[in-house]
Amino acid sequence: MRAVDVIIHKRDGRELTAEEIDFLVRGIASGEIPDYQIAAWAMAVLWRGMTIRETVRLATSMALSGEQLDLEKWAPGAVDKHSTGGVGDKTTLVVGPIVAACRIPVVKMSGRGLGISGGTIDKWESIPGFRTGLSREEILRQVKEIGLVACGQTAELAPADGRLYALRDVTGTVPSLPLIAASIMSKKLATGARSIVLDVKAGSGAFMETVADASTLARWMVRIGQGAGRRTIALVSGMFQPLGFAVGNALEVREAIETLRGAGPRDFREHCLTVAAAMLQIGGRVPDARMGRALAAEKLDSRDALAKFRALVRAQGGDERACDDLSLLPAAPCRGDLAAEKSGYLAEAHAGKIGLASVRLGAGRAKKGDTIDPAVGIVLKVKVGDKVKKGDPLCEIHAASPEALAQARNELRDAFRIAHEKVKPLPLFYKTIRR
Amino acid sequence: MRAVDVIIHKRDGRELTAEEIDFLVRGIASGEIPDYQIAAWAMAVLWRGMTIRETVRLATSMALSGEQLDLEKWAPGAVDKHSTGGVGDKTTLVVGPIVAACRIPVVKMSGRGLGISGGTIDKWESIPGFRTGLSREEILRQVKEIGLVACGQTAELAPADGRLYALRDVTGTVPSLPLIAASIMSKKLATGARSIVLDVKAGSGAFMETVADASTLARWMVRIGQGAGRRTIALVSGMFQPLGFAVGNALEVREAIETLRGAGPRDFREHCLTVAAAMLQIGGRVPDARMGRALAAEKLDSRDALAKFRALVRAQGGDERACDDLSLLPAAPCRGDLAAEKSGYLAEAHAGKIGLASVRLGAGRAKKGDTIDPAVGIVLKVKVGDKVKKGDPLCEIHAASPEALAQARNELRDAFRIAHEKVKPLPLFYKTIRR
Repeated sequence: MRAVDVIIHKRDGRELTAEEIDFLVRGIASGEIPDYQIAAWAMAVLWRGMTIRETVRLATSMALSGEQLDLEKWAPGAVDKHSTGGVGDKTTLVVGPIVAACRIPVVKMSGRGLGISGGTIDKWESIPGFRTGLSREEILRQVKEIGLVACGQTAELAPADGRLYALRDVTGTVPSLPLIAASIMSKKLATGARSIVLDVKAGSGAFMETVADASTLARWMVRIGQGAGRRTIALVSGMFQPLGFAVGNALEVREAIETLRGAGPRDFREHCLTVAAAMLQIGGRVPDARMGRALAAEKLDSRDALAKFRALVRAQGGDERACDDLSLLPAAPCRGDLAAEKSGYLAEAHAGKIGLASVRLGAGRAKKGDTIDPAVGIVLKVKVGDKVKKGDPLCEIHAASPEALAQARNELRDAFRIAHEKVKPLPLFYKTIRR
Repeated sequence: MRAVDVIIHKRDGRELTAEEIDFLVRGIASGEIPDYQIAAWAMAVLWRGMTIRETVRLATSMALSGEQLDLEKWAPGAVDKHSTGGVGDKTTLVVGPIVAACRIPVVKMSGRGLGISGGTIDKWESIPGFRTGLSREEILRQVKEIGLVACGQTAELAPADGRLYALRDVTGTVPSLPLIAASIMSKKLATGARSIVLDVKAGSGAFMETVADASTLARWMVRIGQGAGRRTIALVSGMFQPLGFAVGNALEVREAIETLRGAGPRDFREHCLTVAAAMLQIGGRVPDARMGRALAAEKLDSRDALAKFRALVRAQGGDERACDDLSLLPAAPCRGDLAAEKSGYLAEAHAGKIGLASVRLGAGRAKKGDTIDPAVGIVLKVKVGDKVKKGDPLCEIHAASPEALAQARNELRDAFRIAHEKVKPLPLFYKTIRR
């Protein structure tokens, strides 16, 4: 088999065979196929698309291209959850403890933030002392002891995906739905979880800007998961405004702890209950989502989930006193509000722009390797649909310096829009995709 | 400017600006743009196409990417001619001398054969002693002395095209008409001739298999030439059966000399007269093609063209006695006919299959760098439309060994088709494209 023939088949709109895809993925992983052939193939995929059969094979083959974690052996019945990323998305910090409190093991491997998408690893690390770089043995011990682990990737999962993604990034071949879906799912498949809940975001703060695009991506991912023999469902949720109020690492941890204490923003609590319900259902703990939601709410209200969170922080070297005393979390030296310029109803809190302002404050990375400031960020005071009076704070800015504060205030003005007429609150979820 | 943005613009179907194309070509020539970005861009061009404006700019920019020969200064009024390649195409050997005999300078730079397409350089070199690797100074002196030069490329013309073509070859991005046209024309533009006649072949022995495709390619090339300020016309000619009778280097030289002596196959003589007429017309020597044809025929019949051929052979170190004594040309040790299996009319002499059999005999190269045998090849005895009697020879095979002869005879059986009903001869030319 020759790589150029595989490219030509795709260029001519043919469905690639399983053997062709395996050949390609092996060549990508081993470096035997040169970058230029991979790049030409990726552009041909953008042009011609891929069938679901090709996409399942690509994801599976990439999952098999490197080390695999047999999560099912380590933690039988474990449920994995993946969010496509967004602004203020601290869901994992709350649903992990809820689900683990229901005796379903959760080993959540997360990444670092890049661009406006925050990274869960960065959020965990804003808790003083919290370690995310665990060895296989530590993960194994901890999941047995408390049923909950929050860590970075231990191994190079799906290395073929890593090389392919790096190439797509510099060849204009990122925006292919099958390639995006296969890329995400290859890493999920490599972790070995038998049940996967996908939280696919749609909006200005997400990779997919429309509900239609997010739904299509979700459908691709569900088909890949199911095609690879995993129980998989996807929730399509809104990312037109940030999730909850807080955007920024320690600020988000604070909001997660408040939520675990039974308070927290209503939308965020509701989001967590829905995601947790899906995890409990797919993990076989409850027969349907309604009962999952009730069980999740009970674990929040009983503080069982908070206890699990506390056990996790302790197990990973973090200062568990932060669960009781939020002042132990990093705090920014400069704070100031952005005031509403007129009265009315909040019509927009543009997640993309708020995310960008947060990155500029230092809460995120413009490029890989940038250092971040765990303390800084933005806390919304209102959400879309809320009544606003002129002069009221729209958000509070947490900055490292007065200059950064002033700059953020300036940038953020453009992120909010106030309307005269009543505005409906935004939906939290748009749809559930089961196949 | 970033290469990835140029790729994205093309991917999204936009027309690239002149600056973007120049940036790309400079980066290809200098090596600053990595292969994978060039490959992705080429596939995006296959997908989205290019406008004539983009294509003219690409060809011009590639022509400027390396050394340029100012042919117009060396040989004012010189006319260039280019064939897209075919089986048995020895036209240059005859039209060069005809046109030079009409006092229009011809500096014909040719290539070596690859695959079924023969190379004119290989044909010249089958004349004992003939040198094609001339220096600039030798070319200049010779064009002044006899007005006719037959050589390989002296400089690396259009190096950006060289790198781009090599990449296209291994990334499935060869079959893009604008890219093919820009590739050919970039080298023509770099030689600096002000007038160009293109002989674009259509058929099983050509790069373009249908008259429609060849016409489209011809139209692209004419537009590029004219867009770059050159007088350019294209003839679309048939390559469904070989041109003339002879296929193979020394065999074709023999046929060219016979034609220059006033004999030779009728179709080949006619082809040469038409191409020469176009060159004489575009070079301003005659007002129209009809008068060009008459002048060309006169130069053949008067043996003036043969005298020019002889002068060329002498000037380039070849054994000019071969013009009088064809037995001085290399000859193959084994000869044998392929006999017709039934009577009727010749309906097909498949140029592609005959070309392939000739390559297998050793007359051509399967890959670059292969050595060739100048003596071997195939000489047709009949052409499409001719009456055939069972047992008559369809062709004579010239081979290096009895085994090779037997194999070729076996392969060639499939190349000929005899019909019961009368068959019309094939047209030599399908159309002339002037813009």
